[in-house]
Amino acid sequence: MDQDRFERGKKQLEAMSGTGVDAMLDNLKGIAPDLARYTVEFPYGDVLCRPGLDLKSRQIATVAALTALGNAPVQLNAHISMALNIGCTREEIIAIITQMAVYAGFPAALNGMAVAKDVFADRDRKGLS
Amino acid sequence: MDQDRFERGKKQLEAMSGTGVDAMLDNLKGIAPDLARYTVEFPYGDVLCRPGLDLKSRQIATVAALTALGNAPVQLNAHISMALNIGCTREEIIAIITQMAVYAGFPAALNGMAVAKDVFADRDRKGLS
Amino acid sequence: MDQDRFERGKKQLEAMSGTGVDAMLDNLKGIAPDLARYTVEFPYGDVLCRPGLDLKSRQIATVAALTALGNAPVQLNAHISMALNIGCTREEIIAIITQMAVYAGFPAALNGMAVAKDVFADRDRKGLS
Amino acid sequence: MDQDRFERGKKQLEAMSGTGVDAMLDNLKGIAPDLARYTVEFPYGDVLCRPGLDLKSRQIATVAALTALGNAPVQLNAHISMALNIGCTREEIIAIITQMAVYAGFPAALNGMAVAKDVFADRDRKGLS
Amino acid sequence: MDQDRFERGKKQLEAMSGTGVDAMLDNLKGIAPDLARYTVEFPYGDVLCRPGLDLKSRQIATVAALTALGNAPVQLNAHISMALNIGCTREEIIAIITQMAVYAGFPAALNGMAVAKDVFADRDRKGLS
Amino acid sequence: MDQDRFERGKKQLEAMSGTGVDAMLDNLKGIAPDLARYTVEFPYGDVLCRPGLDLKSRQIATVAALTALGNAPVQLNAHISMALNIGCTREEIIAIITQMAVYAGFPAALNGMAVAKDVFADRDRKGLS
Repeated sequence: MDQDRFERGKKQLEAMSGTGVDAMLDNLKGIAPDLARYTVEFPYGDVLCRPGLDLKSRQIATVAALTALGNAPVQLNAHISMALNIGCTREEIIAIITQMAVYAGFPAALNGMAVAKDVFADRDRKGLS
Repeated sequence: MDQDRFERGKKQLEAMSGTGVDAMLDNLKGIAPDLARYTVEFPYGDVLCRPGLDLKSRQIATVAALTALGNAPVQLNAHISMALNIGCTREEIIAIITQMAVYAGFPAALNGMAVAKDVFADRDRKGLS
Repeated sequence: MDQDRFERGKKQLEAMSGTGVDAMLDNLKGIAPDLARYTVEFPYGDVLCRPGLDLKSRQIATVAALTALGNAPVQLNAHISMALNIGCTREEIIAIITQMAVYAGFPAALNGMAVAKDVFADRDRKGLS
Repeated sequence: MDQDRFERGKKQLEAMSGTGVDAMLDNLKGIAPDLARYTVEFPYGDVLCRPGLDLKSRQIATVAALTALGNAPVQLNAHISMALNIGCTREEIIAIITQMAVYAGFPAALNGMAVAKDVFADRDRKGLS
Repeated sequence: MDQDRFERGKKQLEAMSGTGVDAMLDNLKGIAPDLARYTVEFPYGDVLCRPGLDLKSRQIATVAALTALGNAPVQLNAHISMALNIGCTREEIIAIITQMAVYAGFPAALNGMAVAKDVFADRDRKGLS
Repeated sequence: MDQDRFERGKKQLEAMSGTGVDAMLDNLKGIAPDLARYTVEFPYGDVLCRPGLDLKSRQIATVAALTALGNAPVQLNAHISMALNIGCTREEIIAIITQMAVYAGFPAALNGMAVAKDVFADRDRKGLS
């Protein structure tokens, strides 16, 4: 196992999600420990912590892509929250999702917005931006 | 016809593409004048010129989404070029497309990168950034 | 704001959905007023009210596309209901969705049919066709 | 082999395409005879020849779905041509594809329109509607 | 109706699912009898019972495809269970779904794994492998 | 850089593709060296060389998924060839692709078969199985 990438990814994921990674991964580790490890190592340990693009722009890209694909509401929820954690405003999230009506159609945008609404309500309850 | 939205969209599209819109639309206008008009009015006259998100972030979102969807290489080509026109660097484009390997798989990222390579080569020939 | 398109779209949407638009949009307006407005203006104020294709054929096209895409069950539900409201029969809805097994695979058709079943049961309760 | 379904499908496909099926299938039969046979039997022998929806509405559904899916231009080409053969007008085809901008995004509609343009030009050369 | 294909498909589906087909289909037969019949005849009566590929490999192909498509969790659930019934191990299912992170992205793999987890828990309760 | 994963991936990819990796990657390395490296490290160095599923089954899964997704013909071409290199028969490839008509629709299967046909013709010219 590549301890460096895992530790680097874990730190990156914790910085973005604002919570410990262990609880998040325990669920997945029980059934698919390789996928749990890859999910930390490759996206967070290899890609998102790279120079070349600032982290806010990276989250804009991810929120746009997941809204457009339209079949990953759980991950869209998590990435909207991470985007807000690292400095995106709610207004910016709404603008990205609205824009996807152009490139992926209105149903994709409307379903993405329903996810954003859930995230915002959840963060209101927790007193988060 | 809503002259304001069309004119606003045309100006926006010309500013982003760096060329006149008429040549671009003539091809489409001959067969589908409504779609040609909508393509100026809604994306460019309504959405992309809105406040709430800066134009560079909007292009990052579009390049990400079109790479992830993977079935619109012609439009991805045009939007990579517009992104470069309005201030994205080639390094940023490459980072966005690379990141899509995480969210949409390696084939989507590799095919998006092939489009970027064509855009870069074409711009090299024209002496563009 | 383009009052004509919005009013035209609102009238079109109300005629198709058989209910007031305000309740439907209030939910979305609170979080994303631009997207709420676009959802009335562009699909209903620009596209669906155009000549060139009768409204029943337009709904057949939409039900087919949403079944095939397979990631917009909420919108498929709404459009099956609108299709029935403007004169499609349940038998026709079933035939469209069944046909999508050919072009988008059996899972898309089976999931579309589950949505249709919900719509029909809901309309039975309300005494609608 | 189920001769009835194959013969019924062959007749249906020939009626819609206006040409003999044999040439069309020879290419596929050489490599994948089962898939060639299924392609006649299931879509044409089972589904498209069923009562419950008129053939023109069936082609509207297929053109809409293939435009929205956006990854089957060869089949979209064939089905636009069949739609015109069985009584759709070019104006109707253009309206269906334009409408897909709403449900699947502008890139899907623009790429679908490019296919329609090819079909129309080819039919112009052949003196077809 | 083609009694042979239906009976052959029914037998194939029962062998794979380990339960009677009638209960499974009754739900669908009430609303869409043609689609119910096609679902037995074409996938099970024509395709899955063919020589050319062993049944375990066929289920690996289906689990991979449904995980990658990402919009058919109900069918993925059923096909993971059938794969286990006909001799795949849980470890193999996990490996297939994990691999889809490469070809369809991490969200598709993570959502597929959540479905597998449900299937495994359900089978634990029933004392199945 | 994680030399172990890269070297392991390179060996795996060379074993599967039957050619040196360097020529294959040179094209991509010029523009996107990170993506080139990830493409060796993650799919080949992490996933495909893992125990838990034999390599032939892994290639069956990949060919199925890429056929179903329908927007990665270049990668489908490469993976059909690798599948044949590591012991799949052409008959098995044809059976996998044919089966995708059930789960992703006939257009996906027909377009996948066209890719297979190209691969087979290319291999005939080279005297490969």
